[in-house]
Amino acid sequence: MSNIFEKLPEDLSCEVFESLVDSKNVKIQRIISKGHTSPESGWYEQENNEWVMVVQGAAEITFADQPSVNLLAGDYLEIKAQQKHKVSWTDPEIETIWLAVHF
Amino acid sequence: MSNIFEKLPEDLSCEVFESLVDSKNVKIQRIISKGHTSPESGWYEQENNEWVMVVQGAAEITFADQPSVNLLAGDYLEIKAQQKHKVSWTDPEIETIWLAVHF
Repeated sequence: MSNIFEKLPEDLSCEVFESLVDSKNVKIQRIISKGHTSPESGWYEQENNEWVMVVQGAAEITFADQPSVNLLAGDYLEIKAQQKHKVSWTDPEIETIWLAVHF
Repeated sequence: MSNIFEKLPEDLSCEVFESLVDSKNVKIQRIISKGHTSPESGWYEQENNEWVMVVQGAAEITFADQPSVNLLAGDYLEIKAQQKHKVSWTDPEIETIWLAVHF
């Protein structure tokens, strides 16, 4: 058993991606951000669907095809494969913990 | 966007299972317990692997083949397909919110 709030990385010079489950059909990740954002130009367009929840902290996701959303603890949404999006803001003061399920 | 802490069911005479994602290869559920446990006799033996996290509340999972575990908010573990287990206790005072990913 592990705890999603524990063992946060000390070095957050870059976002930290950790694999919790890595199976054939699904990948579950914990992602830690602290003020990090996606590159200013361009969009993420992922091959797979992603279900993502903010477990702690605060973030903003911007989409090419719909209004941006502000996420706080417990907020979750599904990002469809190929849906253009970017993380346009994360709280610079505390660690934002994401749970991401890629499927 | 939805929030995992919101819109909790009022009727908790039984555990409440809600589907957040239902795709070919993965199912994501929110489960709300309040004092509910598995039936006293027998074990759950699931066809699929399950990754489960307690988002709020407290619970105990008992296994046939390993020590039982007590889970608090943020605690997560993987239950392998066919691994005999049961939920032997959940907090009777507050809603325990589970996030379960079946894959």
